[in-house]
Amino acid sequence: MSPFTGSARRTEEWRHLRVEEQDGVTTVTLARPAKLNALTFEAYADLRDLLAELSHRHRTRALVLAGEGRGFCSGGDVEEIIGATLGMDTARLLDFNRMTGHVVRALREAPFPVIAAVHGAAAGAGAVLALAADFRVADPTARFAFLFTKVGLSGGDMGAAYLLPRVVGLGHATRILMLGEPVRAPEAERIGLLSQLVPEGETAQAAHALARRLADGPALAHAQTKALLTAELDLPLAGAVELDAATQALLMHGEDYKEFHAAFTEKRPPAWRGR
Amino acid sequence: MSPFTGSARRTEEWRHLRVEEQDGVTTVTLARPAKLNALTFEAYADLRDLLAELSHRHRTRALVLAGEGRGFCSGGDVEEIIGATLGMDTARLLDFNRMTGHVVRALREAPFPVIAAVHGAAAGAGAVLALAADFRVADPTARFAFLFTKVGLSGGDMGAAYLLPRVVGLGHATRILMLGEPVRAPEAERIGLLSQLVPEGETAQAAHALARRLADGPALAHAQTKALLTAELDLPLAGAVELDAATQALLMHGEDYKEFHAAFTEKRPPAWRGR
Amino acid sequence: MSPFTGSARRTEEWRHLRVEEQDGVTTVTLARPAKLNALTFEAYADLRDLLAELSHRHRTRALVLAGEGRGFCSGGDVEEIIGATLGMDTARLLDFNRMTGHVVRALREAPFPVIAAVHGAAAGAGAVLALAADFRVADPTARFAFLFTKVGLSGGDMGAAYLLPRVVGLGHATRILMLGEPVRAPEAERIGLLSQLVPEGETAQAAHALARRLADGPALAHAQTKALLTAELDLPLAGAVELDAATQALLMHGEDYKEFHAAFTEKRPPAWRGR
Repeated sequence: MSPFTGSARRTEEWRHLRVEEQDGVTTVTLARPAKLNALTFEAYADLRDLLAELSHRHRTRALVLAGEGRGFCSGGDVEEIIGATLGMDTARLLDFNRMTGHVVRALREAPFPVIAAVHGAAAGAGAVLALAADFRVADPTARFAFLFTKVGLSGGDMGAAYLLPRVVGLGHATRILMLGEPVRAPEAERIGLLSQLVPEGETAQAAHALARRLADGPALAHAQTKALLTAELDLPLAGAVELDAATQALLMHGEDYKEFHAAFTEKRPPAWRGR
Repeated sequence: MSPFTGSARRTEEWRHLRVEEQDGVTTVTLARPAKLNALTFEAYADLRDLLAELSHRHRTRALVLAGEGRGFCSGGDVEEIIGATLGMDTARLLDFNRMTGHVVRALREAPFPVIAAVHGAAAGAGAVLALAADFRVADPTARFAFLFTKVGLSGGDMGAAYLLPRVVGLGHATRILMLGEPVRAPEAERIGLLSQLVPEGETAQAAHALARRLADGPALAHAQTKALLTAELDLPLAGAVELDAATQALLMHGEDYKEFHAAFTEKRPPAWRGR
Repeated sequence: MSPFTGSARRTEEWRHLRVEEQDGVTTVTLARPAKLNALTFEAYADLRDLLAELSHRHRTRALVLAGEGRGFCSGGDVEEIIGATLGMDTARLLDFNRMTGHVVRALREAPFPVIAAVHGAAAGAGAVLALAADFRVADPTARFAFLFTKVGLSGGDMGAAYLLPRVVGLGHATRILMLGEPVRAPEAERIGLLSQLVPEGETAQAAHALARRLADGPALAHAQTKALLTAELDLPLAGAVELDAATQALLMHGEDYKEFHAAFTEKRPPAWRGR
């Protein structure tokens, strides 16, 4: 399965998320619909651990992140998270906030594209999970609410003050993070927060179609595209150009590049291997 | 007043700006309407010194920057600034240009949100002051003219070549700074330069309503949101996530976070303290 | 001609590009219309060497990059480039990919603005060349296709994963580089990829009009604006503000700034020298 395994065993059951795999597409569903998929400490920990395992196992070629029921994710549970953190000491608060931030880093650094399928509310941490995905497929019911200031916290949570200005620009990001007001689908599309707007009720289907296409295509090329987009936000131009050169030299020795040329010459579609 | 005071005394009178304070909202008005609020050496120095004092005193929770009369600010005065700089030696020119740049840094690094209320012309340095604000509330008469190349200078003045690409993207920013042509309200809104477009004549009122809302809300959360947005433009993802985690851990020990939870539990609106 | 010359002689004939100069405007035409201006190893090398020579010679004040025939540039030639790279060893592949990346760096670092005149296809490396320009003047037939993943390579090629997010935001850039689908003129305009949309067939004329205006204006101010935009993408705010201050102090001792003031005082248009 993984080229490099040690003593650690795979987790057999994810108790706080629903995880399904099918031919390279992993679907992770926040499945606590009675609570609008509010996150708990255990759900964050599962996301952190699951993304680490998937990143090592090399079987996932595209990941869909979705929410069951009326919406995507209402964020941290008011009672189970906010109430509980009120009693925590400094070290524990840091542990918690680092854990949530590490989920975002894991999404950005995972060696496969991540597609958030967003309908209804994506609020608080739910909005940041969607923001950290590579694609946001949404329907007209979607609304993103970075409502951290509304609970007395900083709008910069889990990397939001890093990511949002790089997606929609500093002006929109300041307004959205400072005021915490919902960004509905039409505005989200206008300012560049959406990758694809689909008819109501079709987010899951569209997200899976996109994931299937990515997984069945030149998946290593897709993974490297993501890795470079992530890395080059933090690189100067000269370093980015050098990283691109090394990456393309590597992929030009890969199977898919050769296959493209063969298919082109033989006037047939390429049979991608993802290598 | 300030938790930390030394020997320095507060400035009692700002002679080159109009400064008003009301319950945490500071309004700074460029008030030289006969000259379209053209800036002088003394007005720049007052902006620099005022922002430093306000940043230390911790009484300002939101700042409105506005212009009296027909427009916001026509930039550096052609005679008093351009004429005078022609006779300056290198050291003095550096002093002047560093001073204007420090005004922009002070706006970005101030521990409170800044709202520019823009009607009519925001030209040259006036356009950059508005750009350095966190919010730009404008009416249909607003036009932003980064006209530095039109006087033979670089479009990168006072941080404009840093800020504008991060607000509207590199393509628009290049065109706007290189050609120096005015960006009128509809284009400004379309490309993400405006935070809020209001009916003609209502910028002052709308800017004050926003400032009041920010000042009366969880003001420390707002201040930290701004600090993180400013800092994370210059941080890599991992550093940004760590800064967010430390900030949230800090604020989770703050009064407003506790108050939110109490208010939520008691089904009443929170009484924010800004702490 | 150049203030600093050594032993190197100017290239007398560019065999793989058409190069014309007229009063400070250099026009570089990809002129292989039967192959939709597909790039060859020699064309890349000519672009690299030409940009280096033009950058040293200080005669070019604006550069137009255009394509002859049905489109702008279809990118690397499938047979001459892709076929050939399949037989290359690692060192040679690195050499090739660094060369293409250096063309992009040369475009970004050239001491004059670059205007891409785009009609029809700008595909693969052709899309990145246009992206690396300062201005993209396009007509309704233009379509930008960053189709690298479609040949099994990374979407981050020649700095595209650095530049595109800074032009159109991370969300659009991810979608465009990962999927490799064409961005047609209306979308390109909407997301900020175009500087100017002109009627069909008028890209060359409009690009030359813009180049003429830039070359006849305060060309040193334009060159410095470009240099600052390029540098400040990679600088923190404090460094950017300091660079702006030093640049303006420099230009305030220049001829054009003085000329602006004289012209303004005498109520006549400035006679720019570009110094």
